[in-house]
Amino acid sequence: MKQHRLLRALRREPVDATPIWIMRQAGRYLPEYRATRERAGSFLALCKTPELACEVALQPLRRFDLDAAILFSDILTIPDAMGMGLTIIENEGPRLERSVRSIADLNRLGDPDPEMELRYVMDAMRLIRRELHDRLPLIGFAGSPWTLATYMIEGAPGREFVHARGMLYGDPGLLHALLRKLARCIARYLQAQASAGADVLMLFDTWGGVLTPAGYREFSLHYMKEIIAGLRQARVEAPVIVFSKGASACLEDIAACGCDAVGVDWTADLGAARARIGQRVALQGNLDPCVLTAAPEVVRREAAAVLARYGAGPGHVFNLGHGIQPQADPDNVFALVEAVHDLSRAHHGCADPRASG
Amino acid sequence: MKQHRLLRALRREPVDATPIWIMRQAGRYLPEYRATRERAGSFLALCKTPELACEVALQPLRRFDLDAAILFSDILTIPDAMGMGLTIIENEGPRLERSVRSIADLNRLGDPDPEMELRYVMDAMRLIRRELHDRLPLIGFAGSPWTLATYMIEGAPGREFVHARGMLYGDPGLLHALLRKLARCIARYLQAQASAGADVLMLFDTWGGVLTPAGYREFSLHYMKEIIAGLRQARVEAPVIVFSKGASACLEDIAACGCDAVGVDWTADLGAARARIGQRVALQGNLDPCVLTAAPEVVRREAAAVLARYGAGPGHVFNLGHGIQPQADPDNVFALVEAVHDLSRAHHGCADPRASG
Repeated sequence: MKQHRLLRALRREPVDATPIWIMRQAGRYLPEYRATRERAGSFLALCKTPELACEVALQPLRRFDLDAAILFSDILTIPDAMGMGLTIIENEGPRLERSVRSIADLNRLGDPDPEMELRYVMDAMRLIRRELHDRLPLIGFAGSPWTLATYMIEGAPGREFVHARGMLYGDPGLLHALLRKLARCIARYLQAQASAGADVLMLFDTWGGVLTPAGYREFSLHYMKEIIAGLRQARVEAPVIVFSKGASACLEDIAACGCDAVGVDWTADLGAARARIGQRVALQGNLDPCVLTAAPEVVRREAAAVLARYGAGPGHVFNLGHGIQPQADPDNVFALVEAVHDLSRAHHGCADPRASG
Repeated sequence: MKQHRLLRALRREPVDATPIWIMRQAGRYLPEYRATRERAGSFLALCKTPELACEVALQPLRRFDLDAAILFSDILTIPDAMGMGLTIIENEGPRLERSVRSIADLNRLGDPDPEMELRYVMDAMRLIRRELHDRLPLIGFAGSPWTLATYMIEGAPGREFVHARGMLYGDPGLLHALLRKLARCIARYLQAQASAGADVLMLFDTWGGVLTPAGYREFSLHYMKEIIAGLRQARVEAPVIVFSKGASACLEDIAACGCDAVGVDWTADLGAARARIGQRVALQGNLDPCVLTAAPEVVRREAAAVLARYGAGPGHVFNLGHGIQPQADPDNVFALVEAVHDLSRAHHGCADPRASG
């Protein structure tokens, strides 16, 4: 397994072709996913039924030659397991029954045991691991402390995160206490995922980019750094990918946080990102997800452009710059995976793909 | 007027103190604004009644020692005048009755004359100009072609701009045709605003940051460049500020587009932005708007931090990094304006504000 293309790329070792997986590759753009979700009754029921979660995690692997599987779950399993009461409203997003706006709210939060309250996640991980055998690496993940905190402070989805960003200035002590609690909980959760079979761990910091650079370093990155240090101390060896959407202003700081790879969103230039931090970490990204709604030849052209921007040599994990959209055409995903494997061989010293395949 | 602090700062000439104005300074955080809006019946009626638009534009100037007035209007006046049927839904945002998804949709769009279909804007501008006398500079504005196009293509507000970003890959020719039409229309609109009394012109590119860097240059910046070139050709001398939220990856390109100043959002480091482009243009920004929900001493501390990040010397126009939020405390705005004028004197070679005041 350690010699798999994805794991080699994450260690910045030479590969035959650039590995590719897709954020939310098990998702609504696939008719078979929609059917399984229908059967489950709701998105949350799907997450909480290990057999169905395993089934949808495997679905994209049957269609596409992807280089990794990823646990099917949601970043809000943790606030849910802490007792906040999660529901996901169709076409609207997640809603928590309670919100955290005071020390009393904070003290009411539970301290979930990954093998108890979050057992369904670990069971899904073990099932996927078993079904995959050692054919493909399996990615586990969690939301970052800051990103989970935004949902927990806001309660309902809000575009501007007024309460969370306001707490940063109005009651930074309370925010730090919440983030500390989350960081400990997330570290334990990821450690348990590694024990249950994850080969790679990823931190999704979806809302890191709504902070100022100083705020990002203090309230988001700092706690991701603590989580990674905690994992290393617990002798978890799985490489860690950090993805802070919209935070490219802080790329150098992210690359120094102890992670093995940095996710780059589609609004950044991958070549510029590599020039800034590609000597220290691998990079993951960063095709605009909207490309997958266009024609296959556009997909191929844009995939080639991303590969060219990264340039020759190892250290690139191809992905979209954000999760795949429900509007994406599955045929385009097929074309994308093929294009990345095919076109990237030239960047790895195999000019003729037929000869080297 | 040409010697006013704001205009000097935009030309990067020495000033006694850093000028400050606030995006959406006439807005819902002010009780007197809410009262006038109530009287008008709706936000759109307020925009379309020059006397009331003038009244709300002047309101913040009675409370705060701001260095500029800004036209009270909305960026969607143009799609509205093109015949798209604008309504603004309370707590939801703007909605257009029609959307532009085909060449036929595009051909149906009108070609508004600023002094006819948009006469109410010009009348508001003339009224504000008259009421201000020459006491303060007056800022006119328009949305950028790309930003207006996102609303026109989507129709209803959508978080991801799937249709607009999809058109970029799926039918770039149609998107370019729409942007060209908008650029011509906006240039005429801004030219008319200058004739009606605007001393400064600003392009709000609220959604420039959802594009890839290559997409931003081709589909957003290019058309802003055309607008500015058109204004210069028409001998409009007003300095132009370009504000592309979330597009700091392209700062160097923005600084080279012909504008006089670049707006910087709160997610960028103002010191880093100055190091990159401060030799070419003035910079406007970039306090996190959420600071205005905290205590006055936090406002003062964070204002000092923004001033320090810009550093000594001219070329800085203080502002928030985005529009002021309805939750902002007017007392904090008072504290902010005072702090910026007071604390900035040291950066302009006046160490003792009492002595130089």
